[in-house]
Amino acid sequence: MIKFTSAQPIAVNVNNVDVALSQIRNDLMSGWLTLPDLDRTAELESIKSAASRIQSDSKFLVCIGIGGSYLGHRALIEALAPHFPTKVLFAGNSLSPRSLQRIFDKIGDADFSVNIISKSGTTLEPALAFRFFKEKLQKKYGREGAAQRIYATADANRGALHGESVQEGYTRFVIPDNIGGRYSALTAVGLLPLAVAGVNIDDLLAGAREEKASYSAESNFAHVAPIQYASARADLLSQHYDVEVLASFYPELQLFSEWWKQLFGESEGKNNQGIFPASVTYTTDLHSLGQYLQEGRRNIFETFLEIEQPSTYDLAVPSLPGADVDGLQYLENRKLSEINKIAEQATVVAHRVGEIPVFELTIPDLSARSLGALIYFFEYACALSAKLSGVNPFDQPGVELYKSNMLRLLGSPKAS
Amino acid sequence: MIKFTSAQPIAVNVNNVDVALSQIRNDLMSGWLTLPDLDRTAELESIKSAASRIQSDSKFLVCIGIGGSYLGHRALIEALAPHFPTKVLFAGNSLSPRSLQRIFDKIGDADFSVNIISKSGTTLEPALAFRFFKEKLQKKYGREGAAQRIYATADANRGALHGESVQEGYTRFVIPDNIGGRYSALTAVGLLPLAVAGVNIDDLLAGAREEKASYSAESNFAHVAPIQYASARADLLSQHYDVEVLASFYPELQLFSEWWKQLFGESEGKNNQGIFPASVTYTTDLHSLGQYLQEGRRNIFETFLEIEQPSTYDLAVPSLPGADVDGLQYLENRKLSEINKIAEQATVVAHRVGEIPVFELTIPDLSARSLGALIYFFEYACALSAKLSGVNPFDQPGVELYKSNMLRLLGSPKAS
Repeated sequence: MIKFTSAQPIAVNVNNVDVALSQIRNDLMSGWLTLPDLDRTAELESIKSAASRIQSDSKFLVCIGIGGSYLGHRALIEALAPHFPTKVLFAGNSLSPRSLQRIFDKIGDADFSVNIISKSGTTLEPALAFRFFKEKLQKKYGREGAAQRIYATADANRGALHGESVQEGYTRFVIPDNIGGRYSALTAVGLLPLAVAGVNIDDLLAGAREEKASYSAESNFAHVAPIQYASARADLLSQHYDVEVLASFYPELQLFSEWWKQLFGESEGKNNQGIFPASVTYTTDLHSLGQYLQEGRRNIFETFLEIEQPSTYDLAVPSLPGADVDGLQYLENRKLSEINKIAEQATVVAHRVGEIPVFELTIPDLSARSLGALIYFFEYACALSAKLSGVNPFDQPGVELYKSNMLRLLGSPKAS
Repeated sequence: MIKFTSAQPIAVNVNNVDVALSQIRNDLMSGWLTLPDLDRTAELESIKSAASRIQSDSKFLVCIGIGGSYLGHRALIEALAPHFPTKVLFAGNSLSPRSLQRIFDKIGDADFSVNIISKSGTTLEPALAFRFFKEKLQKKYGREGAAQRIYATADANRGALHGESVQEGYTRFVIPDNIGGRYSALTAVGLLPLAVAGVNIDDLLAGAREEKASYSAESNFAHVAPIQYASARADLLSQHYDVEVLASFYPELQLFSEWWKQLFGESEGKNNQGIFPASVTYTTDLHSLGQYLQEGRRNIFETFLEIEQPSTYDLAVPSLPGADVDGLQYLENRKLSEINKIAEQATVVAHRVGEIPVFELTIPDLSARSLGALIYFFEYACALSAKLSGVNPFDQPGVELYKSNMLRLLGSPKAS
């Protein structure tokens, strides 16, 4: 489903990949790997029924979460469901009073529900935001009414949020123990908000399942797309290409790049190693970072995220009467999406001429199915990439230091 | 006004800086350097009068421009004026039909005006978008009525947009010949949309003027903040730190980072040289790129954009009755902005421990005056940085190749 192309030949080190894949399969944190094949009938039914309830009684769903607890579904909602009746808002992903106030202003007097997403419930940003919204819900609906509008996605058995949810009777969803935050987009973490936003979560999961099946169906694993991508990345890194730019010509995929940056940056950036992940949205950024990419330091490679059939929806260039003042008469009645695609082709060629190694990843269309496949593709490629460079794809030891500094400065009783 | 601090000692190479500054002063494209001191009374009056007219007859101003023709004022509007009666929308910065349709949907049947910002008028994205909005204006208000709602910011004497503006009687503003796109935020390019959005443009320009004056007032130029910043960057680059991350704890500055990325990326990224500009918004990205910054490849340095008095507006952590379920009782009634600032201090310390060279740039507050100073600071530092690394800060030869490829593929009569 996901096609990978590279102008350079791709050398897959069969032994290394084989070892890395078997390590991944045996890792306790590889729940995401087999997730698409699980029978999740009961979980999906309860997600859909909660989603229907929220759609019927709330104008807004406030999703509270940070990092892996919001980047995936925010990206998918932006790409797939820009205009839905129940609007999903995102809180608890910063400490900014202005950002929080903006959400209060947006909600105004309307009915809303809250989805708090946090494994433990004690991560500072979401826990603080949850306090604000819990207070507002309780003022508006009373304590019991509030509890009926709180949906908690948390650890199945442990932690502060689990305990509170059981006690208060929130509707509960589970973050599996064997799936870390940045690999959790296709768990309940992502699925409840996505269902509320009107995204077809069955199609999303079907896409991931088909993508996974296509890897097993391929007898020669040197032909499997994420193995090619991971191998090509490792090869470039060994030649000192240490910045990867994910490029797309679709503003609707801009937030998808943010999800991708966390996935790869947090999985690979340790032991003083890792490819630095950056992203651009063209043609916008051709007028910004474009100059650097064309002629700057040659330690960058670029991965274009392309869409074969970008949209059934389109706009045609208007004809204007009179003289050809803007010199664009030759484009009259041409589709914008077609012009955009030509800009893409022109850029790929220009950057290759500029000696940037360029990869192309192509999805069939901008559908839930295709993006489900893409999520799985990147998770697979990322875990493999990290393993190939000798680091643990599933931990994030480096996020502890600022946290312990912060708790100490804040005077937390838990400060170490 | 802008304070620069670095834990490392800063070595200013007085001779090199002196030569570079005199080259900049003598460059034909250094109009931005003395812009704050110009008497612009007549220009400012006509900008303010146009702004009042737009505010009185339009619910929306559609600003059409790309790159330097929109990044600066979009950033300043986002930082300073989130909620104003006349809303400024941004078009012509991509070829995406969905982005354009979203703007059409937002405007609906409301009254609107257009500010087309383009030196020549033939840059593809804005010229195409202008066609769509011109057609809509003409349908709604007739040809003459449309012309009265079109404000053109363009070359004073030449080019397609200038010609059309004269012929149709658009209200005209000038992009000076001696100021390139990415240095144009304080020209009419930025000032008209800013004035419409309710930003105090006098304060903005006063900030730039005061910042400029502070450099001349300093007898030892090794103490001038942008000279220190540029020198410290050059020093780090010579030690192979080739990625700079601009970090802020204020989501309202996120778009400011986009302006900064164009300014530095396009000025420095040539001749296979340049520091790659990236940005993060914390605490959000501590849960994303934070791991990479703490423990990834050590070729990164980080510049924190800090605000001494972030906001008169704030929110306090609510007290909740009952047991301390989330473990956050110790933060009750503390201000979010204070907690955010502590997170900032904790991160600066953690990243220094992680051996990332860290700079701190501090502005007094989030006001038009401070941001005017910051714009001037970065323009000055950027031109100097580029000169110190031996490249031309004011050209962008690398953006031509994809353009000529594109025009050829599109079948343009102007294709080379």
